[in-house]
Amino acid sequence: MNQNQEQTRKVAQNAFSLFQQGLATGKWTPFLDCLTDDFVFWFPVGKYRGRNEGKEKAAEFFQYVSRLYPFGLTLYLERITSNENTVVFELHDEGLIRGEVLYRNRAAISFDVRGNQICATREYLGSDGKFSQDYNLMV
Amino acid sequence: MNQNQEQTRKVAQNAFSLFQQGLATGKWTPFLDCLTDDFVFWFPVGKYRGRNEGKEKAAEFFQYVSRLYPFGLTLYLERITSNENTVVFELHDEGLIRGEVLYRNRAAISFDVRGNQICATREYLGSDGKFSQDYNLMV
Repeated sequence: MNQNQEQTRKVAQNAFSLFQQGLATGKWTPFLDCLTDDFVFWFPVGKYRGRNEGKEKAAEFFQYVSRLYPFGLTLYLERITSNENTVVFELHDEGLIRGEVLYRNRAAISFDVRGNQICATREYLGSDGKFSQDYNLMV
Repeated sequence: MNQNQEQTRKVAQNAFSLFQQGLATGKWTPFLDCLTDDFVFWFPVGKYRGRNEGKEKAAEFFQYVSRLYPFGLTLYLERITSNENTVVFELHDEGLIRGEVLYRNRAAISFDVRGNQICATREYLGSDGKFSQDYNLMV
């Protein structure tokens, strides 16, 4: 890894760890502070499916996710790959939807880095765990 | 990138390009020749959803995919990230399911490299394109 790639990975790993904390605790401010104002994110399903623009939209989305997982969603990181601008985290996750229904999945989340911030994320779902398809589509 | 990472990326990129050709043409032998005998793959939906083991199972799966897209499925590569063992390809794809229904999606596919071969792939779907959810679940 050259110096740029190392710096990119460092910025993304820090943001990812705050993202994990956000999902676990519902406290999103530290993660939101890592995002550029023109932050863009892609999500696979539900009312945020597709491309979403802006930090405010992101704040709204993450609060929504935390309402869906009132006891938190736990991410188990499996693998990190990177280039000079992007870091991809492969993981599996587990949580109780509305505190009741067990959700488990595999996912890959790609973080684009600009300077010391994250300017985009793209989420992809592996869907091979035990989860209710109906609930998943509600996210 | 150090030498190992460069070699890993080279092996995976070659395999990915044969994977693209397989999806476009239905000719899978060159891609299958890149896989280890104990090759394992994860797929998100349908009857191959979850973990699938062995090169024969892979051959069966890819023939199945090519029957589903008789005119081919085209992959547009967007981004490559890597580490010493794994290369992740972010892409979007487009094809006609059964030659009739337009399918478009985003996906991330992760290739694990062992020696000069691919020993595992994991596919994740972005689902934000225009596609029919019902058809997608049939894949």
